Amino acid sequence: VTFVAVDWGTTNRRMFRIKDGVAVASERDDKGATAMSADKYAAEIATIRTRMGDLPILLAGMVGSTIGWRETGYVPTPAGIATLVRQLQWIDARTAIVPGVAMRDPASADVMRGEEVQLLGAVAAGSVPRDALLCQPGTHCKWVWMENGLITRFITAMTGELFGLLRGHGLLASQLSGAVSDGDAFAEGVRHGATRDLLSALFAIRASKLLGYRNDADAASYASGLLIGADVAARIGTARSAPVYVIAGPVLGDLYARAMSLLGGSAVLVDSDTAFVAGITSIWEQHA
Amino acid sequence: VTFVAVDWGTTNRRMFRIKDGVAVASERDDKGATAMSADKYAAEIATIRTRMGDLPILLAGMVGSTIGWRETGYVPTPAGIATLVRQLQWIDARTAIVPGVAMRDPASADVMRGEEVQLLGAVAAGSVPRDALLCQPGTHCKWVWMENGLITRFITAMTGELFGLLRGHGLLASQLSGAVSDGDAFAEGVRHGATRDLLSALFAIRASKLLGYRNDADAASYASGLLIGADVAARIGTARSAPVYVIAGPVLGDLYARAMSLLGGSAVLVDSDTAFVAGITSIWEQHA
Repeated sequence: VTFVAVDWGTTNRRMFRIKDGVAVASERDDKGATAMSADKYAAEIATIRTRMGDLPILLAGMVGSTIGWRETGYVPTPAGIATLVRQLQWIDARTAIVPGVAMRDPASADVMRGEEVQLLGAVAAGSVPRDALLCQPGTHCKWVWMENGLITRFITAMTGELFGLLRGHGLLASQLSGAVSDGDAFAEGVRHGATRDLLSALFAIRASKLLGYRNDADAASYASGLLIGADVAARIGTARSAPVYVIAGPVLGDLYARAMSLLGGSAVLVDSDTAFVAGITSIWEQHA
Repeated sequence: VTFVAVDWGTTNRRMFRIKDGVAVASERDDKGATAMSADKYAAEIATIRTRMGDLPILLAGMVGSTIGWRETGYVPTPAGIATLVRQLQWIDARTAIVPGVAMRDPASADVMRGEEVQLLGAVAAGSVPRDALLCQPGTHCKWVWMENGLITRFITAMTGELFGLLRGHGLLASQLSGAVSDGDAFAEGVRHGATRDLLSALFAIRASKLLGYRNDADAASYASGLLIGADVAARIGTARSAPVYVIAGPVLGDLYARAMSLLGGSAVLVDSDTAFVAGITSIWEQHA
């Protein structure tokens, strides 16, 4: 069985030609949903077929959002591969969009779109147990409680976006332009962030500079540690024995793993592309 | 005794002609420190003397910062009126800048510049006891522990700035353009913010809109409540009997007072202009 899958994010997209569950070709570019408009997708899909093969295409991610090609709904939790398959949005006989997943409860409302394929794929591939806590760091970090192989509950934290806002604008921007590494400054940030008083810890970055206590070369690592530490501590507390399965690329995955380790937890890193291929293959196979 | 005092902030400034401790004239405009450059202050001071009277001038606030006229230092805590008087920076025989105050401890580094005049002025005027917790809401909210009439400890929270960043940029900006009022949505935000998991509570603003649980008309009030609730809860916990003295203009003061009340505390509002006039008068009188 051969088909094409696209993980179509907000700013980037990854395309895979998948044969018998294996990605035999892949491409990545910056034609994310914000770089497209709804009327351009049909031509874009034709181009993808020219490049990746004249095959059925399964799309996931922001392509199914209000800023994408066609809005697909959200399936409710608990959600598994079969739940997603039932709500596939067919554009034509060989082109479909995977729905998102929602927590439909006013007290804990949350949504995901695209992450569900990686999450359920990681379980399908056997990389993650059927009962586990998963974490997908990023602009909007997803924390997902998997039970019996189903997404039962999840929380989204604006960790990456807040870091971007602080880096791009306002009082701290000029101090945060450096690279982030997981050294001592990051670790100090994680421990401070775990006390979860971000509002004051952030201003202290400025005060520490003015009083000569911290070099700006360390400020970005410290700030990243603050935010990730606050995020991790809110989810796992400061003492947890079961590992968290972190689905990410290497850089961000390592930072979260280090934060979990510093706060008394542990992490297992799961490659996000592998998880996506396993998830989208499961959807394709179950639909057929 | 008559002199002119200027509370020279980052974006605005307020000028007062003070006679025997009473503001007999005042003006406010947007010529804050960011609208000035160091070489323009001398001419600006001459203009102020033309408008407010050819009198001695005492300046406080960002005029003494690295982005102001001449950098004045920070006096260490504990700091009182006498401490500030000893470190006045004289430009000429009748023009001086009040220093800032710093917490010189790497573990709790913090700085203020301008707020010290209002804080100590509120005590000097008898509006605040000599032992009290004070709060000055704003872009950078100051929380100050006053002991025996001295500023002994303080913490700055980036509450207002973070609200501005979220309003101006990123995922939530389009939802937060409405006015902030202290109704039910604000109260709900305060209670959620007090749990201090801002990173996820902020994303829920987006999810609640997508799932139809909250009207955007309420989103700005809810977000303001979240941030103020997190700030207040971090400082006073959720049960405190002694009132907090809030030095602010009416709008922001009311929001903080309501948040304190919702979280089991209480607030006494103190007018910031009155506090400034009392503080700068005390400095002037003690210097003379």
